[in-house]
Amino acid sequence: MGGWDAVVMEEGVGRTLIPPHGEASSGPLSLAERYARQRRATLDLCDGLSAEDMSAQSMPQTSPTKWHLAHTTWFFEQFVLGVRVSADDWARLFNSYYEQVGRPFARDRRGLLTRPSLAEVLAYRARVDDLVLALLDRDLEPERASHVELGIQHEQQHQELLLTDLKHLFAQSPLEPVFRFPPSSGAPAPASLSNGLRLRFLPGTSGPIDIGHEGPGFAFDNEQPRHPAMVARHRIANRPVTNAEYRTFILDGGYRRPELWLSDGWAEVRRAGWDRPLYWSSELDTEFTLHGRVSIDPHAPVCHVSYYEADAFARWAGARLLTEQEWESDADPGDIASGHWRESGVFHPTAAIRDVGVRQMFGDVWEWTSSAYSAYPRFRPAVGAVGEYNGKFMCGQYVLRGGSCASPESHIRSTYRNFFYPADRWQFMGIRLGVDG
Amino acid sequence: MGGWDAVVMEEGVGRTLIPPHGEASSGPLSLAERYARQRRATLDLCDGLSAEDMSAQSMPQTSPTKWHLAHTTWFFEQFVLGVRVSADDWARLFNSYYEQVGRPFARDRRGLLTRPSLAEVLAYRARVDDLVLALLDRDLEPERASHVELGIQHEQQHQELLLTDLKHLFAQSPLEPVFRFPPSSGAPAPASLSNGLRLRFLPGTSGPIDIGHEGPGFAFDNEQPRHPAMVARHRIANRPVTNAEYRTFILDGGYRRPELWLSDGWAEVRRAGWDRPLYWSSELDTEFTLHGRVSIDPHAPVCHVSYYEADAFARWAGARLLTEQEWESDADPGDIASGHWRESGVFHPTAAIRDVGVRQMFGDVWEWTSSAYSAYPRFRPAVGAVGEYNGKFMCGQYVLRGGSCASPESHIRSTYRNFFYPADRWQFMGIRLGVDG
Amino acid sequence: MGGWDAVVMEEGVGRTLIPPHGEASSGPLSLAERYARQRRATLDLCDGLSAEDMSAQSMPQTSPTKWHLAHTTWFFEQFVLGVRVSADDWARLFNSYYEQVGRPFARDRRGLLTRPSLAEVLAYRARVDDLVLALLDRDLEPERASHVELGIQHEQQHQELLLTDLKHLFAQSPLEPVFRFPPSSGAPAPASLSNGLRLRFLPGTSGPIDIGHEGPGFAFDNEQPRHPAMVARHRIANRPVTNAEYRTFILDGGYRRPELWLSDGWAEVRRAGWDRPLYWSSELDTEFTLHGRVSIDPHAPVCHVSYYEADAFARWAGARLLTEQEWESDADPGDIASGHWRESGVFHPTAAIRDVGVRQMFGDVWEWTSSAYSAYPRFRPAVGAVGEYNGKFMCGQYVLRGGSCASPESHIRSTYRNFFYPADRWQFMGIRLGVDG
Amino acid sequence: MGGWDAVVMEEGVGRTLIPPHGEASSGPLSLAERYARQRRATLDLCDGLSAEDMSAQSMPQTSPTKWHLAHTTWFFEQFVLGVRVSADDWARLFNSYYEQVGRPFARDRRGLLTRPSLAEVLAYRARVDDLVLALLDRDLEPERASHVELGIQHEQQHQELLLTDLKHLFAQSPLEPVFRFPPSSGAPAPASLSNGLRLRFLPGTSGPIDIGHEGPGFAFDNEQPRHPAMVARHRIANRPVTNAEYRTFILDGGYRRPELWLSDGWAEVRRAGWDRPLYWSSELDTEFTLHGRVSIDPHAPVCHVSYYEADAFARWAGARLLTEQEWESDADPGDIASGHWRESGVFHPTAAIRDVGVRQMFGDVWEWTSSAYSAYPRFRPAVGAVGEYNGKFMCGQYVLRGGSCASPESHIRSTYRNFFYPADRWQFMGIRLGVDG
Repeated sequence: MGGWDAVVMEEGVGRTLIPPHGEASSGPLSLAERYARQRRATLDLCDGLSAEDMSAQSMPQTSPTKWHLAHTTWFFEQFVLGVRVSADDWARLFNSYYEQVGRPFARDRRGLLTRPSLAEVLAYRARVDDLVLALLDRDLEPERASHVELGIQHEQQHQELLLTDLKHLFAQSPLEPVFRFPPSSGAPAPASLSNGLRLRFLPGTSGPIDIGHEGPGFAFDNEQPRHPAMVARHRIANRPVTNAEYRTFILDGGYRRPELWLSDGWAEVRRAGWDRPLYWSSELDTEFTLHGRVSIDPHAPVCHVSYYEADAFARWAGARLLTEQEWESDADPGDIASGHWRESGVFHPTAAIRDVGVRQMFGDVWEWTSSAYSAYPRFRPAVGAVGEYNGKFMCGQYVLRGGSCASPESHIRSTYRNFFYPADRWQFMGIRLGVDG
Repeated sequence: MGGWDAVVMEEGVGRTLIPPHGEASSGPLSLAERYARQRRATLDLCDGLSAEDMSAQSMPQTSPTKWHLAHTTWFFEQFVLGVRVSADDWARLFNSYYEQVGRPFARDRRGLLTRPSLAEVLAYRARVDDLVLALLDRDLEPERASHVELGIQHEQQHQELLLTDLKHLFAQSPLEPVFRFPPSSGAPAPASLSNGLRLRFLPGTSGPIDIGHEGPGFAFDNEQPRHPAMVARHRIANRPVTNAEYRTFILDGGYRRPELWLSDGWAEVRRAGWDRPLYWSSELDTEFTLHGRVSIDPHAPVCHVSYYEADAFARWAGARLLTEQEWESDADPGDIASGHWRESGVFHPTAAIRDVGVRQMFGDVWEWTSSAYSAYPRFRPAVGAVGEYNGKFMCGQYVLRGGSCASPESHIRSTYRNFFYPADRWQFMGIRLGVDG
Repeated sequence: MGGWDAVVMEEGVGRTLIPPHGEASSGPLSLAERYARQRRATLDLCDGLSAEDMSAQSMPQTSPTKWHLAHTTWFFEQFVLGVRVSADDWARLFNSYYEQVGRPFARDRRGLLTRPSLAEVLAYRARVDDLVLALLDRDLEPERASHVELGIQHEQQHQELLLTDLKHLFAQSPLEPVFRFPPSSGAPAPASLSNGLRLRFLPGTSGPIDIGHEGPGFAFDNEQPRHPAMVARHRIANRPVTNAEYRTFILDGGYRRPELWLSDGWAEVRRAGWDRPLYWSSELDTEFTLHGRVSIDPHAPVCHVSYYEADAFARWAGARLLTEQEWESDADPGDIASGHWRESGVFHPTAAIRDVGVRQMFGDVWEWTSSAYSAYPRFRPAVGAVGEYNGKFMCGQYVLRGGSCASPESHIRSTYRNFFYPADRWQFMGIRLGVDG
Repeated sequence: MGGWDAVVMEEGVGRTLIPPHGEASSGPLSLAERYARQRRATLDLCDGLSAEDMSAQSMPQTSPTKWHLAHTTWFFEQFVLGVRVSADDWARLFNSYYEQVGRPFARDRRGLLTRPSLAEVLAYRARVDDLVLALLDRDLEPERASHVELGIQHEQQHQELLLTDLKHLFAQSPLEPVFRFPPSSGAPAPASLSNGLRLRFLPGTSGPIDIGHEGPGFAFDNEQPRHPAMVARHRIANRPVTNAEYRTFILDGGYRRPELWLSDGWAEVRRAGWDRPLYWSSELDTEFTLHGRVSIDPHAPVCHVSYYEADAFARWAGARLLTEQEWESDADPGDIASGHWRESGVFHPTAAIRDVGVRQMFGDVWEWTSSAYSAYPRFRPAVGAVGEYNGKFMCGQYVLRGGSCASPESHIRSTYRNFFYPADRWQFMGIRLGVDG
């Protein structure tokens, strides 16, 4: 079967400590339970992958699966355990960008790290899991507990990246490997049964509004502090832009008309030769997915478009993108539970079904906002190397909101701020339109 | 003598129509007078330059002086006259980036346009001036008049660019040419006589505040519409960061400490090998200016630093940059008249003198803000190709405020938004600090 | 244990057909025996490597081990079997550069081919081996037999490349993996026991001389036809340049003196920042080898230097490189048997021992000649895609002679022409000096 | 009128010392006369150019006209006068690549040297001319005389480069400036009156032959020493490949068939997007010349093709390029006088007329040979910095023979070796075919 599972079984390391994902549990989970679950969930994503699949890197922005496995482990080793479990050199190899704790290995060369082997990385994971779980048996001082929590959230982010990075890698191969078949009940249909939801613009919430996170639950530093903002009158689309709509934009010469584009966007279109979303066939009829090559569903949200493309599409449509404040003020946290998340086993966005209110704010596709990623007023990064987590990226990137079909459901909040460069396309990124109200 | 003036005299074209700059005039100037004055002012900047000096291009972001002369003329030809005065090909050569009126000549190859010659470009200017001034003798329909006004403002922007681009060109030559000697009265002293103003942080204006331009005077579309914004409590530095302060940052290892930098900034530091402001000598004691190489005045504002450097310096200093809303709410338009502008003939920032309130918000150096350049709520670009003026650049750049010693005084407002990429350094860019209030 | 050997055993494919390398045999080997031996020898080189080790690519010029395994197999499938054994897509993946039989997969992206897996590639090898060996049981038509012979020689070339490419990959890792420990008897000593051979120049053979291959044994098309050439009077060094001598060149400022370098070489020194041979430590005392990091033996031949470095060293030494005609006229085929080859298990050059005549022309290090790689008079490439083997590379490269410690002994002839770009360093390349006679 | 001539007149410098080109003279010219003539000839080429035309640089391989004027002068200052006439910095600016006499200014930035101005450079020329001519009034020691001779030859080389560099510059402008109109008698006809010479292959000279220069006249070091070589039996084409023939190659898919190309050549075709000779229109019917855009003469030699294209064309034609030894053994020095040279005023190759023997070996187009540029046996570069003239370029380039319509007639010999990189196209380069005999 080729996966690493067999290796782990032979090595017999640690895994018994971690209950399988999805196991019933009564009441809110303890930190230890949540730790074990998320660590296990990461491994579950690797089923069916060979050591080679998990070791290659297809572009500087992506990382090998094995590196994700090791890096998330290093995070706990570095910031929770505080003692070196792995060899010294490993710390350098699996540090992503924390310059304060040693010079990281070059990001664009992670695919060259054939050593340590997958088996060694799995053993490293198991050893760190043992130690962290032992720690969690005791009472933890608050800072260390908060680092465990941060590590769990971090683990979930890398679960999503693991999937998007793997998709990009597999897309490079003429063999177009299938990562996993969709569950029979949830397969993305070649053409959605629904006739599609008519695009409508509904009134959004405006005026002086408090934005950002406050309260007991976990949130990243970049979602804080909660603060007042002035939100202009606007209307919000009832669903994301669909493949059919985006195809119309293409057929209308969208990629050949400079007046529709930001100056930097037009330069990128010409430089990179873009004429369709990433992973679409040149005939605009099929797309490569984690379930292999499939027909494009006209009613499903368009996906894998850059900020430049989202902005150009909106201009073509006579609309605009929303600011992240508009988005947040319009989002209903109660909708998270009904979103399409990774747990569904369908790793591709699907069409909205019920035509009630504003749909699909959560799950399916991350939604580009028109907001450059920057600090909230009185933003304070955490003290120490953990403070490098978010703040130092507040330049040149744009905020996306709402999570995707590759996000773990428990990871996303209405205040959650994701961020990528305007030319990035390999995440599950889509378009939510707005207009002035 | 080598300048192009002689050529113009021989050709005897048009110049008599334009009164010399600085001529006394009573009462507010007519549009025609302002047109003539600004067109003349551009030419005055070229005194002492050879045709060769005016034809070379030192990097893709800069343009040859001759190109500035032609491009500003093309702007009036295209948007005011509406008829072709020059040869058809010229329109393509001197269109900067207006994709809707023809495919512009490659921006990074403007230095290869040895034809038309300087003499031909000067004749082209004279011919267009004749036609525009003739037009201004009559009553203009409002849209055309507004395009003349836009063209004058555009002319002024290129006057500043002409100076900064020329400075960059001259800095490439081992001969380090002097563009112009400073007036004897206003020379930047090798070391300022003042002892320097102690850095202090004064209370800024906060709360819900209206931002942007409204009213009868000219403003660019990107300063509009006026709208309410929420400004957080903050304090503002009484003056820009000085050379002495910046030197301390350098000596404290500022360029070698990744924890001080944005991630993109640190990448740029390593890629470009930055270890000091553009134009500083490696000994940190002299700098190249439009007046030749001079000693660095410790008390003058530091200049020619990127956004990345401004941000890193602020972090090192335990402060931050201001948002553009904070800057605008703190700026007093009454201070414009006392600023240090291009008209002084001193093309380099000088030290503040009087220690009263917040100094040097206007003139001396453009001040980087922490605000990514984006549209104000309900922003509408102008209809037609003129709409490409500002809007399509609202991505990836940062706002600077307040004008510089190379700006024409009459060009700047408290709502004025300049914008450059975070790695740009060749404008007169400096640092104004702020702190949370 | 992590190697792929276990996998093969489990899969149980084909291997029994191939006798282990080194098995005693009486009389000259049949084509089938030679085929089986060399195919087996390639696999033997992979002992101890993990699937990940065999899948990564460290630069465009190198290929993953797995790709070498598959490509050499494709060669037999394409040119000997003539029927498709593998899936259609595989042919494209494992075609290196034969444009006439389909568009090859991008050379610099071979590390992204995680599929087919190592196990699949090994099965592919076994299947093709079965078919080729079955074919060899029968009488083959001469052209097909000659393609089997060509495939065996090709297999041997890739055995050497497999080693040099792997060395380059392992050198990128901070972990500096050991590929294999040297046999206890043959270990490269930290410092050679010998005192080193004094460098002397011995008279070479000159005048009109026949160059190139003629006769019944195998030779590549680029060694043919045999033809008269005029060889000038010259003297040849008794041994390759040693590490000690090269270190003296470095300490004498060799890498800082442009007058010693070809113009292109000096440009490369500055561009790439070269200041020592590839794999040497900056302290010039240790080097990375396939046996891990070892002390540099002063008396062993210097290795992993480019043509530019070889040429600069020669100029510094008051000598020059030999032409390939001079080299060939001076080489004694009888010395091949006493050379240091891959079969020794010592994958690194070692010091010459006996001071008699001209030593080490064969084995240890490939010797750069001053001859640009070009066609011999009346050179005819083979008909069909096999004709792309050599001829289309006759531009921009230089000839090297004599084989290395990574070459199979049976592969090298005195007429053998290897060729690489003047900036290449990752092969076992060294320096043989000459002077005018 | 815009040319610099007026400036010279005003400045009144030196020019009277130099007799106008073409002036009658009886008997062989003295060194002083030849010096004066060639220095004057360089200036004559600049008639009609503006200071701007003479200051721009269109690619790293080319230089501005003004730089050529200054560099050739610096050569005499440095190697003949031996005292500094210009400012110290100028020596650095106008040193091309002589690393032993100071670090040259970056070659790809020569277009930024707006200072010294053209007028200053002309004065510098005049001053150096005065001094050199004064020197030549006296008896010179032999080494200095030989440096004057070398400087004159060097001046002639730069006369040709000045033309080819200017052509490249003018070709970048949409205005397509005409450098000079052809003399009425010698204009390249839109279509040649001749019906074209049928291509025939004539027997060449083979066997052991002496190659290279020997004797009293001037020759560069790279043409020496004369030495025996073995030339294979071959036949040589009676004229260069014509535009009509090359067009047939294009229409036959020449640029789309990888099997016709060297591996490096095919990579360059794809990288640079080549599909026709430099300066040809995409319709293959007109070409840009120093006389402006003209119809392509089907019978004239094809021009501005790279080595890669010459080699691919030859392969397509079932022929090959000649080695430089074959070329030299077939060339008749007596044909030089009847060649088409720069002095004709027709700066573009024209069709052969008389169908007798081998035509156009000299003049019209440089002919690519299949010989990589390398040292002749016992080659010795001159001592000192002058030794950098040729030897350090003996890597990566190919030899061209015979001179072009842009070469001064008196500059070319049958032993003359020109050399360029295989991707270079901006010289007047063409194709002479050969076949095995």
